[in-house]
Amino acid sequence: MARAESIVLVNTGYGKGKSSAAFGVMGRAWARGWRVGVVQFIKSGKWKTGERKLADHLEIEWHTLGDGFTWESTDLDETAAKGRHAWDVAAAKLASGDFDLLILDELTYAVKYGWVDVTDVVEGVRARAPHTNVVITGRDAPEELVALADTVTEMRKVKHAYDQGIKAKKGIEY
Amino acid sequence: MARAESIVLVNTGYGKGKSSAAFGVMGRAWARGWRVGVVQFIKSGKWKTGERKLADHLEIEWHTLGDGFTWESTDLDETAAKGRHAWDVAAAKLASGDFDLLILDELTYAVKYGWVDVTDVVEGVRARAPHTNVVITGRDAPEELVALADTVTEMRKVKHAYDQGIKAKKGIEY
Repeated sequence: MARAESIVLVNTGYGKGKSSAAFGVMGRAWARGWRVGVVQFIKSGKWKTGERKLADHLEIEWHTLGDGFTWESTDLDETAAKGRHAWDVAAAKLASGDFDLLILDELTYAVKYGWVDVTDVVEGVRARAPHTNVVITGRDAPEELVALADTVTEMRKVKHAYDQGIKAKKGIEY
Repeated sequence: MARAESIVLVNTGYGKGKSSAAFGVMGRAWARGWRVGVVQFIKSGKWKTGERKLADHLEIEWHTLGDGFTWESTDLDETAAKGRHAWDVAAAKLASGDFDLLILDELTYAVKYGWVDVTDVVEGVRARAPHTNVVITGRDAPEELVALADTVTEMRKVKHAYDQGIKAKKGIEY
């Protein structure tokens, strides 16, 4: 059986655990002494703060949508330009050879919202440094990404506390 | 909308990410300053070593099947007795009030293999300290556990590298 130099994982679906599983892999990779980077394509006040704090503690490089972005008048609206900028950051990291693992958290939304063309994503992931493993998360992974990936998991909601009138819980869900 | 004092999550199914998601939640809970414990119901040489190393680094209490177990002649075979012992450890932690989060990793196998009766698990989880959140992982979660849980996610395999002749990768899968 072949041992791939690097693999591409996609966590998609409407259930819980897509990003959690990516951050579990982040911890595992850290434990192995890997160089890990995270690019987060959705910015939110409270979400991801736990993961970010852990990443900082582990000295993992983390880029959030909007970081280092300077608005200049273009044809794009500001949100799309930020999304495109985050993808450019991710593409540079993919190609750099500086990482054993890159987590592209919620990348599928950048495609879904039209910030980045799926062909650019496929090309960027294909053109990555050979040893750079990639984990991509988000709902509605486009079929081109599924085709490209080595492992794809659909997180399917069987039951969710929210449906039963229970609010998201700090420490568990964010 | 109610804010539950604690919730029960189950990650099941045949896809990847059940334990990874649990360990992502472990990191998140750690970031929130929670007291976290892990009881691991399947012992294996290479698997889980990354998670364990991260847990040690974060000073998270970790119990693996067989830890602290002394074999005494009983009606049970040794494997079943170890599994039962791990459950007794988990039940004591659930009731203790010492944890904000307990991860019962691969607990479903202890039920599947007949080491622990599902009614004992349901009773133990129900009798937990009110503020103790629980994450249970493993394939084939019994329906009694699904009924008890607040949130259940099925990790469904869409595609797996292994099927394509690629071996499990250190740092990603263990």
